[in-house]
This record gives sequence, structure tokens and C-alpha cells, in this order.
Amino acid sequence: MNILNSINSSLDIKRLSEEELTELAAELRCFLVESVSKTGGHLASNLGAVELTLALHRVYNTEKDRIVFDVGHQSYAHKIITGRRDRFDTLRQYGGLSGFPKPYESRDDAFIAGHASNSVSVAVGMAKARTLLHEDYDVVAVIGDGALTGGLAYEGLAAAAASREPMVIVLNDNNMSIDPNVGGTARLLQGMRIRPGYIRFKRWYRDVFMGMPALYSFNHDLKEKMKDKLLPVNMFSAMGLNYLGPVDGHNLQELETVFRLARDSKEPVLVHVLTRKGRGIEYAEAHPEIYHGVGPFNALTGELAPADRCFSDCFGETVCELAEEEPKLVAITAAMTNGTGLDGFAARFPERFTDVGIAEGGAAAMAAGMAKQGLLPVFAVYSSFLQRGFDMLIHDVALQQLHVVFAVDRAGLVGSDGETHHGIFDVSYLRTVPGMKIFCPASFAELRAMLKTAVFETDGPAAIRYPRGGECGYGALHPEKETLLQSGHDLTLVAYGTMICEVQRAAGILAQRGISAEVIKLGEIGGEDFPMVLASLEKTKLLLTAEEVCEAGCIGTVLSALAAEKGIRFRAAMLNLGGGIVPHGGRAQLLMDNSLDAASIADRAEALLRERGHE
Amino acid sequence: MNILNSINSSLDIKRLSEEELTELAAELRCFLVESVSKTGGHLASNLGAVELTLALHRVYNTEKDRIVFDVGHQSYAHKIITGRRDRFDTLRQYGGLSGFPKPYESRDDAFIAGHASNSVSVAVGMAKARTLLHEDYDVVAVIGDGALTGGLAYEGLAAAAASREPMVIVLNDNNMSIDPNVGGTARLLQGMRIRPGYIRFKRWYRDVFMGMPALYSFNHDLKEKMKDKLLPVNMFSAMGLNYLGPVDGHNLQELETVFRLARDSKEPVLVHVLTRKGRGIEYAEAHPEIYHGVGPFNALTGELAPADRCFSDCFGETVCELAEEEPKLVAITAAMTNGTGLDGFAARFPERFTDVGIAEGGAAAMAAGMAKQGLLPVFAVYSSFLQRGFDMLIHDVALQQLHVVFAVDRAGLVGSDGETHHGIFDVSYLRTVPGMKIFCPASFAELRAMLKTAVFETDGPAAIRYPRGGECGYGALHPEKETLLQSGHDLTLVAYGTMICEVQRAAGILAQRGISAEVIKLGEIGGEDFPMVLASLEKTKLLLTAEEVCEAGCIGTVLSALAAEKGIRFRAAMLNLGGGIVPHGGRAQLLMDNSLDAASIADRAEALLRERGHE
Repeated sequence: MNILNSINSSLDIKRLSEEELTELAAELRCFLVESVSKTGGHLASNLGAVELTLALHRVYNTEKDRIVFDVGHQSYAHKIITGRRDRFDTLRQYGGLSGFPKPYESRDDAFIAGHASNSVSVAVGMAKARTLLHEDYDVVAVIGDGALTGGLAYEGLAAAAASREPMVIVLNDNNMSIDPNVGGTARLLQGMRIRPGYIRFKRWYRDVFMGMPALYSFNHDLKEKMKDKLLPVNMFSAMGLNYLGPVDGHNLQELETVFRLARDSKEPVLVHVLTRKGRGIEYAEAHPEIYHGVGPFNALTGELAPADRCFSDCFGETVCELAEEEPKLVAITAAMTNGTGLDGFAARFPERFTDVGIAEGGAAAMAAGMAKQGLLPVFAVYSSFLQRGFDMLIHDVALQQLHVVFAVDRAGLVGSDGETHHGIFDVSYLRTVPGMKIFCPASFAELRAMLKTAVFETDGPAAIRYPRGGECGYGALHPEKETLLQSGHDLTLVAYGTMICEVQRAAGILAQRGISAEVIKLGEIGGEDFPMVLASLEKTKLLLTAEEVCEAGCIGTVLSALAAEKGIRFRAAMLNLGGGIVPHGGRAQLLMDNSLDAASIADRAEALLRERGHE
Repeated sequence: MNILNSINSSLDIKRLSEEELTELAAELRCFLVESVSKTGGHLASNLGAVELTLALHRVYNTEKDRIVFDVGHQSYAHKIITGRRDRFDTLRQYGGLSGFPKPYESRDDAFIAGHASNSVSVAVGMAKARTLLHEDYDVVAVIGDGALTGGLAYEGLAAAAASREPMVIVLNDNNMSIDPNVGGTARLLQGMRIRPGYIRFKRWYRDVFMGMPALYSFNHDLKEKMKDKLLPVNMFSAMGLNYLGPVDGHNLQELETVFRLARDSKEPVLVHVLTRKGRGIEYAEAHPEIYHGVGPFNALTGELAPADRCFSDCFGETVCELAEEEPKLVAITAAMTNGTGLDGFAARFPERFTDVGIAEGGAAAMAAGMAKQGLLPVFAVYSSFLQRGFDMLIHDVALQQLHVVFAVDRAGLVGSDGETHHGIFDVSYLRTVPGMKIFCPASFAELRAMLKTAVFETDGPAAIRYPRGGECGYGALHPEKETLLQSGHDLTLVAYGTMICEVQRAAGILAQRGISAEVIKLGEIGGEDFPMVLASLEKTKLLLTAEEVCEAGCIGTVLSALAAEKGIRFRAAMLNLGGGIVPHGGRAQLLMDNSLDAASIADRAEALLRERGHE
């Protein structure tokens, strides 16, 4: 790491010779593998983006130029060479470096990232600001081919073309988002990939067409302002973006040349770069999908620790069983076949499986069309990403009360991915959707039972939300809307999902302190009828809810309002994640920070009883 | 109306001769103008889609084939010829025909419509259902060039191409969505429009390229499976859709021929149809933007009744004044320059104005980029359409607490556009966004003051929500978060926005009945601090809220939860729009239906006091 150890900024990169740069790329790959093998994190995409990142730092200065990384999990090399090398062993850990760009972490990180496809729109906004405020810096969006499957990316491309702002969109095309690309976008890029590299093509194109003026002129018109340095019409050029590419994304000199050309054109330019995920590390290159996001592994062999059984696995198995029973059942994913546990379904029922790419809104609308015509669609999607489908949940699904089942994975705190990925807004937004039933399994057994109920025994929209990871210690089966887990008379403790474990433990602590808590577990949190909770409140007059969601729209407010409507004279306290901006870190730590661990819940309950005693 | 009067289904259309069909098109235009001039509604888009609609009914049978209209306000001709002619004078009126497709209204309406860009995804879902369930019908999406600016449309096109399902996407290209198209999508279509019609082109193309085998083969490869009946590569064909067009959208025979060709190809096909908004009616053709959506007008001259001053006008004027003061202020619209009142701003500050097309998510992300780099963006958008930007509100704006101002127009009931357009979910979803300030002006004066505060005196995300139409009778200026409008001791009445008028009237009615209501108006509804309401509840012990929003996440639940946390012994009742599916009709009628008119509010208050008296 002779060279890497001397690099702390874009300026340091600019000072290197070609040989040193090549050596640095190799050192970065070693550093990445060594480091991520210990901390876990995103590997394959970062290995693929090493040269791309270095070339950007050759041409730009990230202290002032704004490089907007899309999704952002490919920004490790960028972080390592901009002064965060020494802290890289804290990656994704509580209080440590984030696995995604974070402006609060460094001025070299232009914008927050985590969700896909936003970078071009964000960069257009930045470029407009730069121009209107008469400032002098460059703006670049770095977007993968996976993110290009999202409609938001297309909106950004259209805005970039319309703006005529000098800016560069780097399309990092590794021919695979998290799961292999599907659909029209992939096909569109495939057509371009097979063409010769841009420099060879330029020569060929000129040779072929220059001899035929009429035809050349015809093609020229189609390409509008693109001049003969550009390729024939494609979506990007047809929209009005200058198109440069495809370029070998592991050839540092070619990348640097093209980035300079793009920057100096002072127009919106898309540079199409071909990279390989996992590049340079045999096991990662062979199985980029496995080394996309990983826990700690053996750096030499790539051997991974066996994963514990998780809710996604249980979902994947169950949905296959239901599909055996019911031929109308179909499953949908938005580029998360493996993450949601649908890989088995995809293999067994390929014709009943659809991966729409990173297109949650499109998936929800498609599911609505399927349901309208008699299929039973199950859309498995991460809670945080389903935010993209909020309007379609209401407009396309709920207004017609179509029976679509949303398998909402990664509900609650997700841990090391942090604030962009926590699934802590879904209780609020799902409750807003007219007629939405919301199931909250706390165990694998409940997930199985509730998924079956959601699919076969409900009408209209239904969601089943479950967390990242495995069971919490509660392995029971109480699929009812309300279950009395423990009788008591001093206060009513209410929770749902795996939070029930903290609450049960809190009830145990309280019992030792001579406090008798009634514990009610909610199996469903939609609607306005919670008679067991209300009856309990009539008795205890004290409600304490514990929820792994943001405060707005939490079930604590729902139950409080219902009790107030009934005229129950009670007091309430609500434990939750407040405003909803929660950093990365282990779930246990984050629960403690928010007084949602068993000890804190017990302490809060005791304090409430003490306060009431004093009244 | 000799012919029109005999038409009640697709089958009737099929029986007509070419001459009769042409005559029917003329009769339909007369009927449309006569009818819409009385009821108000969408005119220009329907005049433009007459031949398109007739040709579809020649080729398809809408009783079984599924025609998914995008947005749906261009479906009047379809409604008129499918058995709803006699009820067309009830259009958009309470209990009458909807201005949008509604499956509950007729089996000829395949799917609900109202929001843009969803039709292709929905149609893909339907086509998949058709194939998997081994049924026999055709699926068609009819989408305008305006809707094509939405990323959701792009997601649908990609899914259609990937599906390989037999289905037809009709691109109704009138070169103008509600406001003239902008951005890359418009540019993309422009390139196609200038080309010769498809039949002439086909001949020319073959003649030119057949003589040059190598070149033909090269172009052929690019076009993949498209065979020589298709045009050279464009975005649609590059994605894998068969592309047919452009076709003259007012030539019935050509349309019918192409639709048959598309249907019989048994592959996903996009048919590019060129139409003119307002076609056939001089004043509408000359000013399609004026006759997009209109109130009653003079059918002969097109003369419109002068519009009353509305909140959008007040917003448009105020934002111009603020822009004079502050050069960093920029304004954004998503294809609603006129509707949001930004036309004046667009004319006066063209370089500080951006219309992104129907791309609310892209607009929110772009605004975030602008704010990050020092601009002061104001994004004016209808409440119902901002649902599309929910994730970007959280991910791109709120996680970094960027200062973007959302001018949320059409908040509350919108009347005759109905369930797809009511802005009744925003209180819930805006409150879920971390740190979002939410201003609720009840008068023009408050809108002016609050917009100024939102722009200049707040940090982070801020929204200002105001209704369709004008003031309610309350013209005062109380921009504070809580204002005591009337002291009382029997109960606490709380409202915000123009609902305050009903509540003030209710308080008057109650006074006549000897009941003393305390009336509190909320000027802001974000956050968790409402000390005046809580103090009032300490006194009255009875809360009654009246809100023009859905029940989930309404302010009544927020205030109830806060009071319960404080340990106030109170009872609450909440008047609102319940589950959130509210039909079209006059606002006054819809308020009555939901017990939100002054008399109902007063009755509810009295009943509550009576109940309490009995306890």
C-alpha cells in the first residue's frame, strides 16, 4: 500500500504517473477485499468501479466538483482516497463510516445516496444552481445500468437534456444490477454494448457514411446536434444528450480521455462505461451476485459464513408452497430476487415470476392490472423502497380495492445500511392507503400463517411486514389481530412484530419490580378496531407502546385516539424512533439509543406509574 | 345525431360504413362541444381523440378487450359510444358520470384512471393475467405524449418489452400535454414526428437500404426482431417494442389498418399516432391549453366565464413578489404551469423556472439538488400528484433536511374530478416526512404571509397546503401555529385551512343552542407541540376536530395522542373523510356526506356534550 497510503484527495491522484495509477488500482482492490472481508459490506460493485473512480478524480476535484453517486454503495474507493482510509475499518458500524455517501462525513461526498435512480435529477438541480449562482464547478452523476431501470432515472435524463446544463452522466454499465437486469432497459443497453468501442466506431462510421452524403445527412439530422464524434441515434442521443461510448471501464487512460472530452464539451453528456462487477478478484468476478453485499468472509478464498435462516427465507419457502396450491398466484420483485427470498420461486415458477428492475411504482401498477384480471399477485419489496410506490398503492390498487399482497421485507431497523434503508415509515404510509390490511408477524410461524391469510382470506390490498434477519426469541404462533400474551393490571404494554421480544422482556423486568404489566401483541395494525387494547386500557388506564417506526402515524397515536374517542380516562406514552432519521449501526445499539430495548421500556413503564402515583 | 343515437357498443361501431364512420366522428364532436359547454370538463383532448377512439372500437370490443386509458380525461367519446350517451349531461356531477374511466360505471372501462403514466404497467399486468389464465382478449394502453414524460411510463414500456406479451401501446402524440411538453421526452418524439408516415417510409427505407447489404444488415441487427416493416431504431424499438408509426391520428382508415396490424402481430407493439388537441373546433384547436379543462362556456364562440380569483392565483402572484426580492428563488412545476398559477413566474423569470413534465419524483429530487447547492426552490404541485414524490421527500430532501418549499395545491376535496384527484392524503404523508413543516393558510392573506415565512424563515423541508378554488368567507390573517378564534368552555373545536369556515359557522349554531365552543385555528400542523389546544382541552375536556383529509394520520389523532401523553382526561371525536375514497361531486355535497358541513359539525358537538352529560 505504498501509494495508497499517500493519497488523501483528488489532488493527490492527479500527481500520479500512469504506472503509479495502475499500481494504486491494484492496491485499492487489495485494500477493499481486506477491509470488507472484516467489516462486511458491498464488494463486487466497488471492485468494478476502481478505475472509474480514479479517472473521475484525475479529471475532477471532489472538494469542489459535485460527484453524485447513484445508490452509493459503489463509493468505497472514493471514500478511501478522500481522507477516510484510516477509518475504513469502522465501515457500516455504529459511529463509524457509512457505507453510502454522506455529506456530513466529508465535503467530498456531494449528496446522500441509498435509493436508486435519483442521481441524474439531483445533478441537474446542482448544475442549475451552479449556473444561476454564477459559480464555477463541475457536476457529475454516476449511475449504474441497474439504476437506469428506474423511471426516476429517465425523468432525470429528460431534465438533463432539457436543461442544456454542462454536466456529465457516467453510466456505469456492468450488465447487472443486484440481480441480472431485465426488461427493456437491459435490452436497450445490450444493443449498445455489442458495438465497437467509441474510437474505433467513430472511424468506421465516418468511413462508411461519408461516402454517401444523402444517407449521412439523414442520419445526421436524426442525431441533431451530436456531430460526427458521436454514435448513431440511441435513447440518450434522441433525448438530446451527447452520447460518448461505450468505453472500457477498466482502461484508466481511455476513461480519463473521455471524461475530459465530456467535461470540456460544456453540454449535457452521457458517458457509457463498461465495467465488470467483482473485477480483479476471481471469486467476486465469478459470482458478483453473491459478493454484492456480504458479511465478513475469508479474503483469500471468498468463503462466506453460512447465513442464519431469516424472515426472507421463510417468506420465499411459503410463497412457493402457496403457489403449488394456487396456480393464480404470481410473484413480483423489483430487482431483489435474492434479497427478498424469491430465488426459489423464480426457479420453480419462471412464467409466474416477474422482475421489473428497480421500478417499485411500475411493479405496484402492474400488480394492480394483474389483480384486476384475476391473478393473485404477491409483490415482495423492501419497506424503504416501497415508498416509491406510495401513489400506486393508493391510485392503482386501493381505489379499486384490488387484491394485491405486498410482502414488505426489511420493515423496521435494518442496521448497518442506515438512514436511507431503515423501514420505519411504512406503518404510517401503509395505514394511509384506503382499506389496507397490515399483518405483522413476530415469528416465522406467524409469517407463514399470515401470508396464507393475506393471500387466500382477504380482499383488497394487504401488506405483511417483517424485519431483516431472523426471529427474536419469540417463536410462537398467534396470528390473531390482538393476542393477550400476559395478563396484568398496572399498565398495558402493546407491540407488534419482533419488538414483542423487548416488550416481553420488559414485562419480565417489571414483574421482578412488582409491577404487573398486561402485554398485548398485535398481529394486524390496519383499521380502527382494537377492542382488546381498549378493554385493557379501561382496566389499567395506562398505555405504553413500543414501535420500531417513526413517530408520525405510529400505532401509539392510533390507539390513543381510539381510546380518547371511547372516552377512556387514560394516560399514554409512546416509544418509537421519533422524527425518523436514524443512523447506521447494530439494531441492539439503535434500540438502546431510542429507549426501545427491554430495560428502557421497563424503566419508562416504571416512571409512568410513579408519575401517576404522584398525581 | 342520426348515427350517434344508434351507437351503444363496439359492435355497433363495427357495423358502420366508412362514410357513416366519418359522419359519426363529426356528430361526436358536436355532441362533445354541446355537452361539455354545459357541464364543463375536458374538451381539447377529447376532440383530438375522436378518430383514435372510433378506430379502437372498430378493431377491439371493449366489453371484453381491455383498453386502459392513461389519465383518462380523453375517454369521453369512448363513454358516449358505450351506452352512456343519455347520461352524459350528468358528467362530473354528484351521482353522475365520472370524467374518468371507472370500471364500476361500465364493463367497457377497463381500469380506473386519473393519474398519468400508469397505463402501460397496468396493461402489462393485464396481458400477463390473460396469458397465464389462458383467456382470450386483447389488451391496449392508450397513453399521451404528456404522460410519456413520467418515469412510470418508461418502467411500463420496459416491462412490456420484457414480457413479450401480445399487447398494443397507442401513443397519442398531440405534441402537448396540459402544458407544452418539455425536456428530453418531447425532443425524442419531435425527432420521430418529422419523419414521413410509416407506409411511405417503409418503401423508402427498403429502397435505400436494400441496395447496400452490409449497411442493411447492420441496421437490421440494431433493430433486432423488428423486421423491415418497422422504422429505424428509436427508444421504443431499442427497448424491444415493435414500433409502428407515425400515423395520422385523424385518418380513420389508416388508424384501423395499423391497429389491426399491431393486434395481429401478437407481440408488444407501440403505435405512434399523431393527433391535434381541439381538432375540428376552431377555438379549441387554436388554444388547446385554454380548453383543456374548462367550466361551462359558449359552445358557439368558446367564450368562457371569467374565473374567480383562487388560491393558485394568489400563490402565483406571491411567488413572483418573493422572486423579485430574492434572486436565489426558483420555481418548479410538473406539467402544471397554468394550473398552479406559475404562468406569470414562467414569463417573468424564464431562467429560474423549470417544468419537468409529469415527473413529480424527478422534480423533488431536482429541487433537493438545487437546495443542496444554495438555491431556494419552490415546487408547486397538486396534493394528489405529490404522492408520486413521497420517497424523494424523505430520501432526497428530508434526510439532509434540505430547504425545499412544496406549494401543495388542490389540498382537500377537489370536487368534480373525484377520487383520483382529491388531495386528502397529504396531511398524513407530509407529517411522515422527517422535519417537514406544514403551513395551512385559510385565506389569501395567510397564504401570502405563510409562503413568505416558509421561503425565508424556515430551514429544512416546508410545505404550504391550500385548496382548489377561492376563499371560504374567512379572510383574516392569523398566520400563527395556533390561533384562538373564539373562547368557550363546553368543548374545543379545531380546524385548519378553509375548513375553519364550517367550524366557525358551527360555533355560531352552537351558540344559538346555548353551547359555548372554543374555536382554535391551526396555521401549522407539523410537529408535536400544540400548547393552546392542550390548554383548551384541560378546560373543556372535549375535543372535536374537523378535517378535509382521510382518517389515518389526521390531526385529530395527533392531538388526541398528545393530550393522552399529557394525561389530560378528555374525550375526542374526529370528523374527516374516513377511509379516503370519496367520489366526485360538489364540495358542499361531499362535506355533507361526510358530516363536515357546519350543521353536521354542530350536531356532532351537541351529541357529544349530551353523551358526556349522561356519563
